[in-house]
Amino acid sequence: MNNKQLKLADLAKLAGVSTSTVSRALNDNPLIKKETRDKLKQLAKQHNFSLNTAASRLRSQKTNVVAVIINFDSGTEQSINDPFLLKVVGEINLALNKQGLELLLSNSFMAGDDWANYFINSRRADGIIVVGQGKDPANIEAAANAGVPLVVWGDPKTPSNYPIVGSDNFVGGRLATEHLLAGGAKNIVFLGDPGHAEIGERYRGYLAALNTANARSQVVSIDITSRAAYHGINQLLVTQGLCFDGIMACSDMVALGAMKALKERYISIPNDVALVGFDDIAMADISHPSLSSIKQNTQRASVLLVEKLLAQLQGQSAESQVVEIELIYRQSSKG
Amino acid sequence: MNNKQLKLADLAKLAGVSTSTVSRALNDNPLIKKETRDKLKQLAKQHNFSLNTAASRLRSQKTNVVAVIINFDSGTEQSINDPFLLKVVGEINLALNKQGLELLLSNSFMAGDDWANYFINSRRADGIIVVGQGKDPANIEAAANAGVPLVVWGDPKTPSNYPIVGSDNFVGGRLATEHLLAGGAKNIVFLGDPGHAEIGERYRGYLAALNTANARSQVVSIDITSRAAYHGINQLLVTQGLCFDGIMACSDMVALGAMKALKERYISIPNDVALVGFDDIAMADISHPSLSSIKQNTQRASVLLVEKLLAQLQGQSAESQVVEIELIYRQSSKG
Repeated sequence: MNNKQLKLADLAKLAGVSTSTVSRALNDNPLIKKETRDKLKQLAKQHNFSLNTAASRLRSQKTNVVAVIINFDSGTEQSINDPFLLKVVGEINLALNKQGLELLLSNSFMAGDDWANYFINSRRADGIIVVGQGKDPANIEAAANAGVPLVVWGDPKTPSNYPIVGSDNFVGGRLATEHLLAGGAKNIVFLGDPGHAEIGERYRGYLAALNTANARSQVVSIDITSRAAYHGINQLLVTQGLCFDGIMACSDMVALGAMKALKERYISIPNDVALVGFDDIAMADISHPSLSSIKQNTQRASVLLVEKLLAQLQGQSAESQVVEIELIYRQSSKG
Repeated sequence: MNNKQLKLADLAKLAGVSTSTVSRALNDNPLIKKETRDKLKQLAKQHNFSLNTAASRLRSQKTNVVAVIINFDSGTEQSINDPFLLKVVGEINLALNKQGLELLLSNSFMAGDDWANYFINSRRADGIIVVGQGKDPANIEAAANAGVPLVVWGDPKTPSNYPIVGSDNFVGGRLATEHLLAGGAKNIVFLGDPGHAEIGERYRGYLAALNTANARSQVVSIDITSRAAYHGINQLLVTQGLCFDGIMACSDMVALGAMKALKERYISIPNDVALVGFDDIAMADISHPSLSSIKQNTQRASVLLVEKLLAQLQGQSAESQVVEIELIYRQSSKG
């Protein structure tokens, strides 16, 4: 074994290629043919050469890592354990991997307020995908103003100087409510916090549907968790009795919490109360009764988020984009 | 604004502290009092000073990032979208965040074969948590032999020179099978691939329980997905009819795939076929019928994995550890 430390230039000389080709090959850069990469890796191994990627990243300014920030509101009990958030992380990870990028999982608590410094200037990541606009866009705006390559999963209708990809939440709220009205509901609870950007749009869709109908509305504003929904519906039943016959829930997890409260009191779903969720997570299909839901196409949205981030990394601009949404009709509501 | 670039030493002088204190404070190192960190960050901001963390990491050899490698077998259709894997990633992320660490999500396809170079020598991460032993431990062993700080979620009984944290899979398999036998099952299918380390232990537990009972066994070896389970059980029913009255599934997702196949043929659960899963994911509780399952304590295991990795990062050794396991009895099996 040759113990003398080989330099990048020595290896390039040995292989008869440029140093940048060696560096790219050992960094698995797809610009270099797979065959050449394999050959150079083999050569590096034979000569016990370890590329110091961190040093190379300092030169190339690239990490091939994208930070995904789960943007929790302060005070929420929602966590990374939420099945919808995990589904989104899984889909974004698949979309990043396809582009040779890896995912650094972060969140609004870990990352503090200065995302430009924490992730980009410190070279932890090349760009940022923010999951959720939350109630206060200050940190997102500050990062975008600092020139950070950044995309947001949120409500694409929000005016912004960064691209937002997300579902048509207004149409989703309207579709869910129209479906409840068509099934005969006359007193429909909106279960969720309209102060949250995406949920606010769903709420406006709900109001738009109710506007043209002879039905009453009532908002039960809660945190985005099953637990909060369970307690919110329990509280409503205790104080006002069964004063509603439909629930438009702001998420499937919220709908499942409401379902638990209704089932415990032997309130029939959908005959006494019809229920529609939002997201279409896997649990919606296997719950009993199965849960009607507005399906968010997280797979399509994840591919778009990554495309728009890559465009920015290549110096191009990218626009906000709406992803189609659809009602999945199941047992928890009437047809 | 002062355009002249301030050096770390200048900032330390201004603040009247050492350069290492400034560096640690701006890196949010919890060794420095929160108050001091905030003061120094404020000062850095006033003077437009951006710490080059990557350069500082090269010096300190620390990234404060832990790579989590989802160790897929080649040829599996299991992906990061699997709810149990996502649950584990979520729990590990919470445990890492509590220690001021962040999670770089990777997998056996992205990371190639030389994990020591890809993650540690290239300074992408300080250590590695491998989720799943898979069928072939070669990459794990190579990384451990290269001195990489590394822990594995897997079967803690496997002899190894690295710490493995995981459930007592043998006891889990035995408990599930004893429960099916107690409910009167006489022909029990083991649904899963015993060639996989953790599933192999569950299979041996299943065999141990059957050994002392007057019952028949049958293995349907499938990939760890709902889809494979659905097709496996369908195939068995088509070729051999209803030749079994119990299923011990190697995961809840596998159990849910089997449940779908049984329900489509109006086979009563648990009267015709009783069913026990493994993992106790959230879906087990809300499926219909709800799914009996062996609960893996992923929260406890994640805390242990992070503790044992930190011990290694501090130059201490760490041992494999078994995490308690329990049967959660629900509607899919008979009491």
